[in-house]
Amino acid sequence: MTRIPCAILGAGGWIGQHFARLLDSHPFFEVQVLTGDRNAGRTLGALWQLAELPPPRELEDLRLVRATARELADRGVRVVFSALPTEEAGPMETLLARSGIAVFSNASAHRMDRGVPLLVPEVNGAALGRPPRGRAPLVTNPNCSTAGLVVPLAPLQKLLAPREVHVSTYQALSGAGYPGVPSLAVTDNLLPFIPQEEEKMAAESAKILGWPARGRRGSVDLLAHCLRVPVREGHLETVTVRAGRRVSAAEVLESWKGFDPLTEGRSQGELPTAPRVPVLFRSEPDRPQPLRDRWAGEPERARGMAVTVGRLRVDGPFVRFVLLAHNAVRGGAGGSVLNAEYARWRGWLDARD
Amino acid sequence: MTRIPCAILGAGGWIGQHFARLLDSHPFFEVQVLTGDRNAGRTLGALWQLAELPPPRELEDLRLVRATARELADRGVRVVFSALPTEEAGPMETLLARSGIAVFSNASAHRMDRGVPLLVPEVNGAALGRPPRGRAPLVTNPNCSTAGLVVPLAPLQKLLAPREVHVSTYQALSGAGYPGVPSLAVTDNLLPFIPQEEEKMAAESAKILGWPARGRRGSVDLLAHCLRVPVREGHLETVTVRAGRRVSAAEVLESWKGFDPLTEGRSQGELPTAPRVPVLFRSEPDRPQPLRDRWAGEPERARGMAVTVGRLRVDGPFVRFVLLAHNAVRGGAGGSVLNAEYARWRGWLDARD
Amino acid sequence: MTRIPCAILGAGGWIGQHFARLLDSHPFFEVQVLTGDRNAGRTLGALWQLAELPPPRELEDLRLVRATARELADRGVRVVFSALPTEEAGPMETLLARSGIAVFSNASAHRMDRGVPLLVPEVNGAALGRPPRGRAPLVTNPNCSTAGLVVPLAPLQKLLAPREVHVSTYQALSGAGYPGVPSLAVTDNLLPFIPQEEEKMAAESAKILGWPARGRRGSVDLLAHCLRVPVREGHLETVTVRAGRRVSAAEVLESWKGFDPLTEGRSQGELPTAPRVPVLFRSEPDRPQPLRDRWAGEPERARGMAVTVGRLRVDGPFVRFVLLAHNAVRGGAGGSVLNAEYARWRGWLDARD
Amino acid sequence: MTRIPCAILGAGGWIGQHFARLLDSHPFFEVQVLTGDRNAGRTLGALWQLAELPPPRELEDLRLVRATARELADRGVRVVFSALPTEEAGPMETLLARSGIAVFSNASAHRMDRGVPLLVPEVNGAALGRPPRGRAPLVTNPNCSTAGLVVPLAPLQKLLAPREVHVSTYQALSGAGYPGVPSLAVTDNLLPFIPQEEEKMAAESAKILGWPARGRRGSVDLLAHCLRVPVREGHLETVTVRAGRRVSAAEVLESWKGFDPLTEGRSQGELPTAPRVPVLFRSEPDRPQPLRDRWAGEPERARGMAVTVGRLRVDGPFVRFVLLAHNAVRGGAGGSVLNAEYARWRGWLDARD
Repeated sequence: MTRIPCAILGAGGWIGQHFARLLDSHPFFEVQVLTGDRNAGRTLGALWQLAELPPPRELEDLRLVRATARELADRGVRVVFSALPTEEAGPMETLLARSGIAVFSNASAHRMDRGVPLLVPEVNGAALGRPPRGRAPLVTNPNCSTAGLVVPLAPLQKLLAPREVHVSTYQALSGAGYPGVPSLAVTDNLLPFIPQEEEKMAAESAKILGWPARGRRGSVDLLAHCLRVPVREGHLETVTVRAGRRVSAAEVLESWKGFDPLTEGRSQGELPTAPRVPVLFRSEPDRPQPLRDRWAGEPERARGMAVTVGRLRVDGPFVRFVLLAHNAVRGGAGGSVLNAEYARWRGWLDARD
Repeated sequence: MTRIPCAILGAGGWIGQHFARLLDSHPFFEVQVLTGDRNAGRTLGALWQLAELPPPRELEDLRLVRATARELADRGVRVVFSALPTEEAGPMETLLARSGIAVFSNASAHRMDRGVPLLVPEVNGAALGRPPRGRAPLVTNPNCSTAGLVVPLAPLQKLLAPREVHVSTYQALSGAGYPGVPSLAVTDNLLPFIPQEEEKMAAESAKILGWPARGRRGSVDLLAHCLRVPVREGHLETVTVRAGRRVSAAEVLESWKGFDPLTEGRSQGELPTAPRVPVLFRSEPDRPQPLRDRWAGEPERARGMAVTVGRLRVDGPFVRFVLLAHNAVRGGAGGSVLNAEYARWRGWLDARD
Repeated sequence: MTRIPCAILGAGGWIGQHFARLLDSHPFFEVQVLTGDRNAGRTLGALWQLAELPPPRELEDLRLVRATARELADRGVRVVFSALPTEEAGPMETLLARSGIAVFSNASAHRMDRGVPLLVPEVNGAALGRPPRGRAPLVTNPNCSTAGLVVPLAPLQKLLAPREVHVSTYQALSGAGYPGVPSLAVTDNLLPFIPQEEEKMAAESAKILGWPARGRRGSVDLLAHCLRVPVREGHLETVTVRAGRRVSAAEVLESWKGFDPLTEGRSQGELPTAPRVPVLFRSEPDRPQPLRDRWAGEPERARGMAVTVGRLRVDGPFVRFVLLAHNAVRGGAGGSVLNAEYARWRGWLDARD
Repeated sequence: MTRIPCAILGAGGWIGQHFARLLDSHPFFEVQVLTGDRNAGRTLGALWQLAELPPPRELEDLRLVRATARELADRGVRVVFSALPTEEAGPMETLLARSGIAVFSNASAHRMDRGVPLLVPEVNGAALGRPPRGRAPLVTNPNCSTAGLVVPLAPLQKLLAPREVHVSTYQALSGAGYPGVPSLAVTDNLLPFIPQEEEKMAAESAKILGWPARGRRGSVDLLAHCLRVPVREGHLETVTVRAGRRVSAAEVLESWKGFDPLTEGRSQGELPTAPRVPVLFRSEPDRPQPLRDRWAGEPERARGMAVTVGRLRVDGPFVRFVLLAHNAVRGGAGGSVLNAEYARWRGWLDARD
């Protein structure tokens, strides 16, 4: 089988490098181009910042380039994975889709656009709908803290009929990219503010989970506090849901355990980045923890894609738990890679196969 | 004026050392005895663990001793400040009070006992009531995370008529004492569980703020998630209150700014550990922070006693903010010292003055 | 081939768990017993502390037991890997060897004993000599900071004819085990003292590298400063050698690159824990780093066994470099596992095979 | 007494802010201008980054400005304290001195220039010589790691007749300024390289301590390894001196204890930033530590100016110890403030007084 030629945009940054790592030797996608404005001319290996992880063998000697949408099309690129900064992502991604190049983007620029799927395949696969006409698809994944939240909420929606969701986040340093947060800002300290993060969580969760507009019947209030803590990777979130009906902890657990919406695609080998157990419950009293649980997910290609939940407590209408998701994998590059696998499986990338 | 002879119980631990620091050269209390079972025979200076702070000059050469209630009474001790572990505090504090020694305790053993004030002078000074008969007073201060919460909630109670309080904590390492949390447990990590902490917050907040028992009219649900983060000192908490009536941010600010319930005692010089501004609002978008705000409070003796609040957001019935309190001062030794000053001012320590 | 039945002593501690991880599915050794006094009755999985690494599948459900040398012999154990505390290791290891059980120990108790090899196979394989008579072998590996030092010094001994070795260490937290260093001791801090460490480095290096006793011709002064820094794993050391003859940086590099003393055993598949490149030179100006280089070593079974060197500077008689070694692998459990493989290859474990 | 009007150049950076803090309410100098290119127009309070310390009351509302040497002279500025980046400091400081404004600089640009004193008053006060003619003085202080080293070496020079000095540094984050080191670079990590630092230590130490040029009789080899560790402030250094003559530990201690070269100026009240005890020996086995010792120095104005030494070991010709100095105070702004006080006392600033 021929792999689909693709490019990573913004490959020099933290998410760009996670894309490179996840797409290394990928069965369906073949990275042929890495772009990066500031780092053009340098190899991926020389730029490598994911200190705990080795640079991908297939790609480490590839040099970053500057490239327009036209140039990417001319080089035969059919799919791009975008880790561009928001302000560049806006016009560039539109241009690419119009040029016939499918875009799977981690940028926030188009997430809330009508007609642009904001996709988490386990949660709202149906949002993909039909392929667009006259242009290539543009598919986004949510913000890193939203991604971790919607996965364990999805299987509880019917059960709980939620009215409010209270979330406080303990977000890792890598969520701000590299160089990102200065060491002097978070040594013996934490930061109680991440610009725009709380607004994104509310808006994106509502779009993904299909919550009615605020004020309408069935709407859900999401009240978030988003904070940065001195941890390398892995966003932890405390969650309290005010349920519309009374449930037991056993029912919540059962919903999580039975949650496997991608079983068909996984068993066909079409979704190698989809974790076998998307919501992993840990019964120990002190889990999940960033260091121990950020790489949850099996098989190997899906490491970092499972969302770990724990500390489930049901108290009257309130269902409380703690979750942990790898911000740069499930909440970043891995989300977009899974979206691309899912779109391909659904036939969105067939046109010129 | 003669100072009241007093002792610090458990002076070798983290809170015990904060007691020593706060009582150094205190105008009303004179520390004459330091107790500590494991560290008996060593000087306070040799045990000193509060690395950022110098040991108190008046006390650094004093040696810790083992002492029974009887021995303390025989040595003329009239007040003890207790930083004992819970299991020791239970019987010892009862014995002391019966022996005629006033007890101001940071231990949790007697906090929820009927007839034992759980006191935060700015919040529930009236809880002190009348001095007990036939024994010396036993007065407790709340758990470190509760102490930070009730101070800014107190001036909002009437305004908001709260129905629910959602709290997530970002608790500092020193809350677990010394040696406490192993470095390998929290380097590049955080811990999502602190035993009994959530239960304490709910029960103690209700007692202090006078909330009716659950299920009764006017009761308030406090739903907490308590977590430990890699920060030396200063507990940060995110708070979302579901108000029973609609308010504006301006009204909330006004309530905080006008909050000065101890003005009389302070202006008489009777409460040197009471901060001039008990709830300090910071308007910067990224405050409070542990490193910057833990020592808030004036004058000098009240450093670490102010609770800093910030990030106020009002959204329908939900009032959100972030608070920071020094866990070992406002939430520990400082709380008990202020309680003792308050009790003295109210005449509870007069009997034999 | 039947694997040799073995036990891990002190399996509940940090090094004990690294032993369990390294011996999981080992081709020659089969762990059948885990001992641990404090943790007897609990499974390895329940005790698991190596947060970044999964517990070994083969062993995670095994329960720790208390066991005497006699009981181990009765259960058919033929080899033990010892991670006992020094004071327990002393008598127990002697007893085991007399009972006919081979001991590969990370404890310091017998390292300096005459007749007990202090072995690093790449450096002083010949120290193994002949198997002892009348008892099973007892073989030790050096202290964690010594292990990292002797590997890159070995190939330079002839070249440099060293007179002095100046070392300063930047030792990781896990070197003190678990719970080990309190988080309050090293958050925004480091500790300039590790008891007995400097003495061990001097004595053990001399024994391993065959340096004459001090004062004799050819003796080498090792002057160490041993410090603890807030890093999880991986000991870094700065090294300045005063050479007895003038050399160039190119000669030093060549000596390191050509260093492969175990090539025969490796190529025969007899030493699966021996790294293909024992001394790995990195030419980047800012390497080695603990986070990036602690897991150096190939193949998979030898991860953490390579010593990474960098920042080579030659200046008159002074040769300066920086090294990094995984303290718990090359400097701990991995060292002993390699020793056991090496002893087995050399026929020391044949007797009853 | 009228205070001398002065300016802080580069007041927005980490060292600039320490200057502002140290010069707040200074008895001899009055800060009238703060300069800063990037931050022009903002107040010092709004820029404040020294999180643990409050902004100086006298200066927090002052706005940073862009200013040429001419403009500074026109505003009556007679002394500048320079925290400029090296490349800007070079031409600007020359221009200022020619314009008649005395320059006390923490920048490295002119440190090694002939005729420019590289001054540490306790060590080489005589280096000040006579005031220059035809221009105002330009006086520099050494690099942060050099400053900590030369103070305790100075009183040992005669005693030890040193031949070599081996140093390894454990440098704090603030040495790189703000934003400086990214948190992802040093969380669970350290960095073994600081550009140009080792060269500066060797050259600057030789200039300050008057060591003959290399190869000449009496020259001293300084062999440094400079590394960055995850600590906020306070550079720790391990030192091994190869002495030219045999000494005892008692002699070393005596030299340190008797070291008080500025006693005259201090007792006259002319050197408020000079610490009463410039070299403070701690006998505890685990001191100095950054967290505990960085603020050593008395009186209040001299906090952070004492160099703490400990772990003294004498072994044949080798004298080993560990030192700690506040990099931004003794090794930065405080050094320059003391230089200015010293120059004023010596009459260098008299001209127009």
